[in-house]
Amino acid sequence: MNKIKGLIAATFAAYNADGSINLSIIPAIVDKMINDGLTGVFICGTNGEGPNLTIEERMQIAEAYVKAANKRILVLVHVGHSSIAECRKLAAHAEQIGADAISSVAAFYFKPTSVKNLVNSIAEIASAAPNTPFYYYNIPTLTGVAMDMVDFLEQAEKAIPTLAGIKYTASTLHEYQACLAYKNGKFDILFGFDEMLLPALAVGAKGAIGSTYTFAAPLYLKVIELYELGKAEEAAAMQLNSVNMVRCLVKYPPIPAQRAIMRMEGFELGNCRLPLVPLSKTDEENFKASLEEIDFFNIVNSVAIL
Amino acid sequence: MNKIKGLIAATFAAYNADGSINLSIIPAIVDKMINDGLTGVFICGTNGEGPNLTIEERMQIAEAYVKAANKRILVLVHVGHSSIAECRKLAAHAEQIGADAISSVAAFYFKPTSVKNLVNSIAEIASAAPNTPFYYYNIPTLTGVAMDMVDFLEQAEKAIPTLAGIKYTASTLHEYQACLAYKNGKFDILFGFDEMLLPALAVGAKGAIGSTYTFAAPLYLKVIELYELGKAEEAAAMQLNSVNMVRCLVKYPPIPAQRAIMRMEGFELGNCRLPLVPLSKTDEENFKASLEEIDFFNIVNSVAIL
Amino acid sequence: MNKIKGLIAATFAAYNADGSINLSIIPAIVDKMINDGLTGVFICGTNGEGPNLTIEERMQIAEAYVKAANKRILVLVHVGHSSIAECRKLAAHAEQIGADAISSVAAFYFKPTSVKNLVNSIAEIASAAPNTPFYYYNIPTLTGVAMDMVDFLEQAEKAIPTLAGIKYTASTLHEYQACLAYKNGKFDILFGFDEMLLPALAVGAKGAIGSTYTFAAPLYLKVIELYELGKAEEAAAMQLNSVNMVRCLVKYPPIPAQRAIMRMEGFELGNCRLPLVPLSKTDEENFKASLEEIDFFNIVNSVAIL
Amino acid sequence: MNKIKGLIAATFAAYNADGSINLSIIPAIVDKMINDGLTGVFICGTNGEGPNLTIEERMQIAEAYVKAANKRILVLVHVGHSSIAECRKLAAHAEQIGADAISSVAAFYFKPTSVKNLVNSIAEIASAAPNTPFYYYNIPTLTGVAMDMVDFLEQAEKAIPTLAGIKYTASTLHEYQACLAYKNGKFDILFGFDEMLLPALAVGAKGAIGSTYTFAAPLYLKVIELYELGKAEEAAAMQLNSVNMVRCLVKYPPIPAQRAIMRMEGFELGNCRLPLVPLSKTDEENFKASLEEIDFFNIVNSVAIL
Repeated sequence: MNKIKGLIAATFAAYNADGSINLSIIPAIVDKMINDGLTGVFICGTNGEGPNLTIEERMQIAEAYVKAANKRILVLVHVGHSSIAECRKLAAHAEQIGADAISSVAAFYFKPTSVKNLVNSIAEIASAAPNTPFYYYNIPTLTGVAMDMVDFLEQAEKAIPTLAGIKYTASTLHEYQACLAYKNGKFDILFGFDEMLLPALAVGAKGAIGSTYTFAAPLYLKVIELYELGKAEEAAAMQLNSVNMVRCLVKYPPIPAQRAIMRMEGFELGNCRLPLVPLSKTDEENFKASLEEIDFFNIVNSVAIL
Repeated sequence: MNKIKGLIAATFAAYNADGSINLSIIPAIVDKMINDGLTGVFICGTNGEGPNLTIEERMQIAEAYVKAANKRILVLVHVGHSSIAECRKLAAHAEQIGADAISSVAAFYFKPTSVKNLVNSIAEIASAAPNTPFYYYNIPTLTGVAMDMVDFLEQAEKAIPTLAGIKYTASTLHEYQACLAYKNGKFDILFGFDEMLLPALAVGAKGAIGSTYTFAAPLYLKVIELYELGKAEEAAAMQLNSVNMVRCLVKYPPIPAQRAIMRMEGFELGNCRLPLVPLSKTDEENFKASLEEIDFFNIVNSVAIL
Repeated sequence: MNKIKGLIAATFAAYNADGSINLSIIPAIVDKMINDGLTGVFICGTNGEGPNLTIEERMQIAEAYVKAANKRILVLVHVGHSSIAECRKLAAHAEQIGADAISSVAAFYFKPTSVKNLVNSIAEIASAAPNTPFYYYNIPTLTGVAMDMVDFLEQAEKAIPTLAGIKYTASTLHEYQACLAYKNGKFDILFGFDEMLLPALAVGAKGAIGSTYTFAAPLYLKVIELYELGKAEEAAAMQLNSVNMVRCLVKYPPIPAQRAIMRMEGFELGNCRLPLVPLSKTDEENFKASLEEIDFFNIVNSVAIL
Repeated sequence: MNKIKGLIAATFAAYNADGSINLSIIPAIVDKMINDGLTGVFICGTNGEGPNLTIEERMQIAEAYVKAANKRILVLVHVGHSSIAECRKLAAHAEQIGADAISSVAAFYFKPTSVKNLVNSIAEIASAAPNTPFYYYNIPTLTGVAMDMVDFLEQAEKAIPTLAGIKYTASTLHEYQACLAYKNGKFDILFGFDEMLLPALAVGAKGAIGSTYTFAAPLYLKVIELYELGKAEEAAAMQLNSVNMVRCLVKYPPIPAQRAIMRMEGFELGNCRLPLVPLSKTDEENFKASLEEIDFFNIVNSVAIL
């Protein structure tokens, strides 16, 4: 697989009113992603509530996305789980149904204690899908696993033949830049901190995966366009819209708040699963008002990409 | 169920040479636990590598323990999982096969953010086994979920009809004592920090769950006996053997090190699963030598319980 | 110095209305401590707001306590500071004025990174008072320095000729017991977690330093008495009063809340210094009501020590 | 004071062979900073070992810097201390001797528990130098005080008349950008994470304070120049030299390692104070070799600023 350019949306789980997973909405989500100019979707990750779903549900969702995408857009399947044995089932399944890539966080109950231990753990997962590119999903604030990612690349390069790169979800752009530079850019290091997309571009980011691309892609595509045109101040001004939106968002639990935005944009995703809790009606209204105050919806809708 | 008195062993997972789970060793383990004077076993928990196993493996292990125990010893089944939907499957299965109690940690990828959120999450798990006593497994250092346990009892009392108590794995004995005292001892608060068993007895502990009871039960039963006889100094001297053993143990990864002790005692449990890694041959030898230096094996084998 | 038996009160700072330190109240505090049956006072520590005071103020307070105590009660002077050079000034001064012992936390801006580094840092402090017993003040939750205390004793034994022991403020009673047992009790390990005094006694504690001994000493002296008489259940019931009081207390910032108790007991200590903030009038009233609900004041006042 | 443009060097403490502070080297350091094109010096901060020094030493160092600078370069004096009373002495002194600005971390033994508490604490420090611009020094990884900095600006704006801005030492560039944007850039937000200077420029940074500017200023000035010329890839390539250097550096304790670089560049700063420990001879040689491997010294020396 070539390196990924552009934006990958980390999509949200969708549920029916009875709490079962909603597969029927997936084609509409995929179409929105294509219309919004995205390069791919990242499914069953943190925002996709992968760790809240059963193995069977995850497989069904993956199948629905691969089918709906129909090669029009990349599908990256997150297979992370506390049990590597379960990860391997998910990885093998993803390969079998034709996913474009797989990805996994580190184990998160028993946690890897060294880079070597992490690499060995990830190698066991990746080897269950021997023909599918693998991205390690680095998100230390959620998993508590904070290893040096350059060291990871050095050791994983030998141990994981399918290693494509890293989904890098951390604000440490110096390490991110070092990963990009590793062996003259051998690996594909996708940036995962949407509200810092512009500074990541400045150190060389070409592709990014994030949840807010699900509902605010035009804004970020404009950031990329302005940056590539050398319009530094305009790019920063556009990025500031993301910063402001995220500041509203983090006043609430972030995943439920983003699901509320999806509803505001016409996608009813149902109630997230415990321990996640949907925003209350009042919180949703206040949140919407705060987004309107910063003119968020108008900005997203009015951005014209060249 | 009446309150549990005495010691519950948090048993270890057993694997065959090919990495599959070893069910055939379970009767021997159960017999050892009965011979050692234990009250029960706690299975598929942290030491039992529950989060490293598949759902199917966990069910098979639970069935094997319930069958081997045959009501001669209590079987508590840990059903914790990052997905509450999977927890519910495990809970329902445990009830169906006749487990004496179930237990669960808090969700550990998405973590509860308040006592209320924790109680709601646990209630959803417990309700899948409506006729089986439930123990919340409180282990903040592993899950990162550190809620006030008295507040938990207050809220869970109403929301979880099957709530029997807490498996309390933390060194904060003041909170532990407050839990014991809640409504004049309404709930069964089992202590989970083996190396602090004696001080827990001093504030009222009657039952305990721990991994080292699997291989050093006589030592702890003697601590209890001496404590109950009012022989304070002798009880402290006996408890010190546990403290010293644990000091040796924590120089290595604790679960692999304890599995090595089981091997020294004649139980070959196979290799633990990644990200856990067995002790190297050298480490195992050094560890054994350090245990011999503190006379650990002789002490465990020579203790005579009245 | 012989080992310390009984209770040492970690006294609070006292301020005049203009914010300057109140030295004139110190004799009354010392007399109360003596009347309450305490063995000594620990001054300018955490509760004494040592790190909030200037060097000059700390010296004045130390002088006032040594003078007021007049050898009727031990005076332990805390000399901890982010600058070891300042620590040394305080240590030399304490020795010169005749303090019974000195004590210091680890440096807390730049933090020791190994036991060896900690020992070397502490040795530099202790050597400025070459004729005064030194207690290392271990309080990991405040300083963020969490070293193995048995390893500390092993290394400090050689490097710090004046080492008397440790003020051990942590709930990890297994490590505490190991420290007590080190070389058959060579060092004096004073326990610092008041709400866990009884369980500490069970593993061998003889002396303790804590803030709540300032205003609730009779309760704890009764715990000790009952424990020594072998009345385990009564001792636990008495200790529960401490647990309950501390549960009320930690609903507020602990130091300001305890200062409020001192006011309720007739000692006006003035306003603590920023970043500490006194309880609001409402909070103080609610706090007092919660203490009355658990009958705290009556219990403290009615305890009869044999 | 106008906003600061360019680079401020966070200089290191200098000691004589007997451990006393070396004041005589300060003019040479200042001259180097001027020759290197820096805008100012930040003294007695983290790298300047402020918290390791006595109050008197800090005052002497401040005086020496102000005198040596003689208005040719800005002098920012860090006055942070665990005691606000001591901070105030340092602040008043800095104003009296004509420092260009003062700065302070949050209290770091007792830590502020809310933005309001932080603002009140900082206001008390700043008010001791009522005619001197004040920069809050935000460095959460060292102080453990992690408050929202936009909220801080909102509340501090009213409470601190001399507030000039923030020394922002964290990798969270989205928050940094939000601070820059606050009230259309009312405050001066100086960036403090040298290895992320380029991405900070991309979101609008104009000034920066950092330790590596002390010995590698040309490299960073070139980054700024290239960035301003719109040469994005060349700027990233130059910034990568900083990233690589910092990767070498963090294999050792960072402050001692940087002091070793100063020695390599001809400035003998003596031994840092405990708990900081100088690099061993071997470590220093290995460190130097690793810097030579990435051609660090040649790059710094050969950069030609337009």
